[in-house]
Order: sequence, then structure tokens, then C-alpha cells
Amino acid sequence: MIRAVLLDLVGVVYDGDTPIAGAVTAVERLRKAGLPLRFVSNTTRSPRSKIVAQLAAMGIEVADEELLTPARAAIEWLRRHGREPHLLVHPDLEAEFSGLEGGSGKAVVVGDAGEAFGYASLNRAFRVLSAGADFVALATNRIFKDADGQLSLDAGAFVAALEFASGRSPVVLGKPSADFFHSALADLNCPAADAVMVGDDAESDVAGALRAGLGAALLVRTGKYRPNDETQYDPAPTAVVDDLAAATDWILNRAEA
Amino acid sequence: MIRAVLLDLVGVVYDGDTPIAGAVTAVERLRKAGLPLRFVSNTTRSPRSKIVAQLAAMGIEVADEELLTPARAAIEWLRRHGREPHLLVHPDLEAEFSGLEGGSGKAVVVGDAGEAFGYASLNRAFRVLSAGADFVALATNRIFKDADGQLSLDAGAFVAALEFASGRSPVVLGKPSADFFHSALADLNCPAADAVMVGDDAESDVAGALRAGLGAALLVRTGKYRPNDETQYDPAPTAVVDDLAAATDWILNRAEA
Repeated sequence: MIRAVLLDLVGVVYDGDTPIAGAVTAVERLRKAGLPLRFVSNTTRSPRSKIVAQLAAMGIEVADEELLTPARAAIEWLRRHGREPHLLVHPDLEAEFSGLEGGSGKAVVVGDAGEAFGYASLNRAFRVLSAGADFVALATNRIFKDADGQLSLDAGAFVAALEFASGRSPVVLGKPSADFFHSALADLNCPAADAVMVGDDAESDVAGALRAGLGAALLVRTGKYRPNDETQYDPAPTAVVDDLAAATDWILNRAEA
Repeated sequence: MIRAVLLDLVGVVYDGDTPIAGAVTAVERLRKAGLPLRFVSNTTRSPRSKIVAQLAAMGIEVADEELLTPARAAIEWLRRHGREPHLLVHPDLEAEFSGLEGGSGKAVVVGDAGEAFGYASLNRAFRVLSAGADFVALATNRIFKDADGQLSLDAGAFVAALEFASGRSPVVLGKPSADFFHSALADLNCPAADAVMVGDDAESDVAGALRAGLGAALLVRTGKYRPNDETQYDPAPTAVVDDLAAATDWILNRAEA
């Protein structure tokens, strides 16, 4: 029986500023069925306030505890370890990390910096890593569906660059980290085996959720999905469905009445 | 018995525009001993003409066939395979690739583009790769010793980024490719086992040469060398010596009279 639902945002609920067809109604149906929802996004180009505003503009009201982002997980990590961040993130995300100065050491924090990724910024991060800073990756996604509809480089490529040059492995805080999935379920009192994840990324969303012990993970054919994605990563999706509307049918058929 | 000598340039013969102490005399001694020399550089920021001029300014005359660069190997590769290059290289290197337009397909060619590495240029290269182009890396070095004396990101980090995002592996044309070492020896009629390599990179220069079958490879403690580099890669150097002058002593003790 399914007792909680984790939803990816970009490529599942919306693309750019447009909701995906049927997605808003699907979220309403899940709420009406009494299923607790958590929105687990790996987007690291937008601050939380912008994501909440985007969802509200589409008619989806989201409470603060319902939205999990890698930046939120990173801020908790930095506080817990007493580290001051050296940020290699999107300029829009920098303000979220204010107030963390003066730790007992540094941590290089890498998100999808977009146009802020350049030789100089990457080399500065490499030198801070080489001097002994911790290494935190907000996400390791390979690609995302860009505004022009084509696939573009996501944060994972740049994390891989720093990993190769420094010989160091990052702590990964977003999906597919099992901790990230578990923290999304933490205040729901719901065992992972009773939760389902819905995403368009066969690797980070789907294989990640199943490896974290979730009972099911559905791959949608929207967003960055490309034919045969479901055969590329292990474990394979529990099911592949057209979109969030179809995923909702699948879930409601298996949810507690 | 040693019958041929391959020398790395940056960090062994010179740093920036300055010869390393004793290096010019060492090259003279090797020449006087009648040992054929090949300069095998992974530098992909400078065109051949600039490297030849730099060496001449230091008093080292180099014939065209004595200087091997990854760009030269790449141009041969592109001609042989009939590929038009999509260049992600240093602007100073672009002119060397002229006249290769109109192949039967494309190949993304990645060198140390320096400041020309940015989100936009990397994403363009990623998209060309995703559309089916071949993938050619001029070098995969992790780091180099920069003008300020500190270590900086080399081409390998950016090759790793594209490799991670595309799921594709490059053809590597510079060191540590065995083909590159073999092509340096091709016109010398000298078996690899009778040749020695001298370099400051324990991975690309030293382990690469030994894997390519060279009889010996010496690691110098100049350039990007850092203590314990000799223990990081397999195979380990035949010997670790202070600099090219000491390497020359080592070589002349083992060369044909």
C-alpha cells in the first residue's frame, strides 16, 4: 500500500514556467486522496522562494516543509559540520547561503551554476579543494531539458571535472543521495517501503529512490525523458507512465483507501 | 642500453618563458652524446611555431620532426578519419586546424582551452557530441603548474565533464596514449625498450611511457612535481631525479658509447 508520494518538479510538474498538461489536476487528486506529498527537486538554479512562487502561480500551494531542495540539505550539512561555504552555485542561489561565515573550515559547494561556470570559477574551487576544503555537491545530474527544448549540461558534469582534477569524491546532498530521500520522509512517519517517487530522470529520481529503499519509483515520459532511458540504469523503474496524470492513476490504484 | 630520449617540455626544459636551471646544458650534452631527441609535449595552449620560438630563444634549436604535440597527432587523426573538427581548444591553437572543413562527419576536439572553457562552449561541445560526433581529447592531464606557481586545472578536467554528461569515452591523442609515444619513436628505428622518457607528470609522462613499453621513465622534481607523486600511479618511475641535469647524468651512464 502506498502511503506517501514524492514528486520531482521540473519535467514532472512543470517545464520552464508552464505546468505539464494534467499535472495541476493530478496534484489536486493526490491531495484529495489524503496522501502526504513532498516535492523533491534537484533544481539548484532557483531559490526556494522562486520555486514556491512558480508553483503558486500554477495553482499549487506548497507549505515550507513540503519542498525539499539540495540547497536546504546543504545548509543543514554546513551548520552541522561547522563549515563556511565556498560557493560555486547559480547567482540566484547565493543569498540562501548567507549567515554561514566563520566556520572551523571551508566546504566547496557546487550546484548548477549555469553561466557562472567558467575556467576561473572552477579553478578557484579546485584550489580551495586542494587546500583541504570539504567537497559538497548539491546534485550530480548529467543533463536537464533546457529552455530551448534541447538537453544541456547539468551540475554533475562540473562536479566530475573537479573530482577528476582533485582526486576527491564529493558528499552528494540532492538526489540520488539516500539521505535526501529519507529526509523527505522523515516527518511523515512513513517507512520508505510505503512511499513512491515520480520523476523524469531514470538515474537520479528513479534508480536513486529504489536504492534508497522506496517501495516504488515511476518514470514519466515528460521533461528530459528520452526513449530507452528506463533500460540505462539499475534498478529499473517500477513502471514507465506517460505523465504525472498517468502516474496518479497508478498510485491511487495502490493507495490506502 | 639507451638509444633515444623523449623529453617533456613544460616543467622539465622550461617553466613559462624561463629555462629550468641546467636544462639547456643538459640538452646540449644529450645531443653531443649522439642520442636522438624527441620533445613530446602535452601543452595545448601554444601553437608549434610558438613552442619552437620559445626553445630557440633559450638556445635550443629544434627541427620540425623533433617536436610532437597532441595537435599534430589530432590533425593526422582528423585527416585519416575524414572528420571536420568542432574545436574546444585555446584560441592560439585554432589556426593549426584550418583546412579540415568538409569531412564526412564531425569530431569534437578538446584541448586546454583555458579561459575559453565556459558553460556555453562546453554545452555546445556536449550537444555536438550528443548528435553523434566523434570525441577526441588532445590530453587528459589533471593539472599544470600555472604562471603564479600554483597548480591549475588542465584539459583533463573538462574532458571528464564531457565524458560524464555524454556517457562517451574520448580517443586520447597526447600522453599517456601509447600511440603518441610510439609515433615519437616511429622514424628513429629504435625499439621502445631502448628509449627513455623524462617528465614531471608521474601519470601522463612516466606511467604512460612505461605502459607504452619504454625501457625507462624518469620523474624530475621540477615543474608540477609534488612530494610523493611517484607513489600515486602505476607503474612507478624507473628513478626519481632532481631535474633534467640529473636525468642526463642517469641517461649518459646507460647510453651507447
